[in-house]
Amino acid sequence: MINFQALFKISYGLYIVSSGDKAKGNGYISNTVFQVTAEPPRFAVCCSKNNFTTGIIQKYGAFSVSVLVQSASSEIFGKFGYRSGRDFDKMAGTNLKYGDTGVPIVLDESISYFECKVIQTLDVGTHLLFIGDLINAETIDDSKEPLTYSYYRQVKKGVAPKNAPTYIDKSKLEVKTAASAKKFKCVVCGYIYDESVEAVKFTDLPDDWICPVCGSEKSEFAEIQ
Amino acid sequence: MINFQALFKISYGLYIVSSGDKAKGNGYISNTVFQVTAEPPRFAVCCSKNNFTTGIIQKYGAFSVSVLVQSASSEIFGKFGYRSGRDFDKMAGTNLKYGDTGVPIVLDESISYFECKVIQTLDVGTHLLFIGDLINAETIDDSKEPLTYSYYRQVKKGVAPKNAPTYIDKSKLEVKTAASAKKFKCVVCGYIYDESVEAVKFTDLPDDWICPVCGSEKSEFAEIQ
Repeated sequence: MINFQALFKISYGLYIVSSGDKAKGNGYISNTVFQVTAEPPRFAVCCSKNNFTTGIIQKYGAFSVSVLVQSASSEIFGKFGYRSGRDFDKMAGTNLKYGDTGVPIVLDESISYFECKVIQTLDVGTHLLFIGDLINAETIDDSKEPLTYSYYRQVKKGVAPKNAPTYIDKSKLEVKTAASAKKFKCVVCGYIYDESVEAVKFTDLPDDWICPVCGSEKSEFAEIQ
Repeated sequence: MINFQALFKISYGLYIVSSGDKAKGNGYISNTVFQVTAEPPRFAVCCSKNNFTTGIIQKYGAFSVSVLVQSASSEIFGKFGYRSGRDFDKMAGTNLKYGDTGVPIVLDESISYFECKVIQTLDVGTHLLFIGDLINAETIDDSKEPLTYSYYRQVKKGVAPKNAPTYIDKSKLEVKTAASAKKFKCVVCGYIYDESVEAVKFTDLPDDWICPVCGSEKSEFAEIQ
């Protein structure tokens, strides 16, 4: 018996994992970044095989991790979380520095960052687990709290994109739905506004209401069955 | 350049990872439990080769994870976090159930649990990374928040034990120390009361003061140089 709600109790942070170089870099939002050993300091990141960044990490053998601030904007989620770098240059207009390995490090809306050199790669099915030795770590703003996945879900009403290890098909959750409640989906990021769990009907939301995940306008939502 | 303070911004939960059977089971407190794929639901846990539980997971090919509640007591940290199952039976007096694989699942001070069957093991140096398929997950108390490592460190003043992937030798941290400040170490769990970062001198603490990590009495502390 698997109750998927139980898995919501697992804690994660939210990060931008990047790789590449000055000519072509890319990054995406990840919640699976973990330290695996202290001596030497060594980290694991888990990347979907579908993510554009994954192939770049394999090619460059290095990655950076930027720890997102709790107040991270919907714009940064729209840019790094729900769109692919295959379609546009995510690093254009992004405040960056370059690490010792040459990989880009996103500084926008981040409170610290670190850089790792890949030493092992494990195929875990739909995802690759990159194990990397820490070669660089710096604090950007020690006064601010990191964004956690729990805060993102509960306060920002964000959902995991399809490529995330923690993506849960909503049909697997036991949610009671009022007969008259409707659902509206953001066509940009996939966020679902579900009237059965919201206080306000979708049509009653103000015209300047935006998608809490990617910042798209209300007009970008389509009713789903 | 590695600034270890930067790594404190990474978010983790705190869990009891257990394995074994009815006759002999053991568990320890871990902060490195994370989902690696959604289809199928698959998890990674990172265990020190020195941990008694690690050999048990290897032998039984399965493990359970109990998600600790935010209010978890110092007693449960004293029992599962800082003492080895080689020395005593941690499961005696613990409220348990047994999973489909037969492994014990700790229910005390936990808000949800899940059980995994090991499908892969990766040697990452001092630790083993066990990858397991989810076969069981249940919520115990949906109304309560999980304990995070950040809360444990900031509010409960806990420190990582030596076997933790996130253990940081205090000498690596840039801390200004007053010339007259002394340090006192809990001989049970290794927690260090450092006068240079505390408001009260150790000798001025009340007699009924206890170690914030493992609950040991003030008399269990020894001054260190």
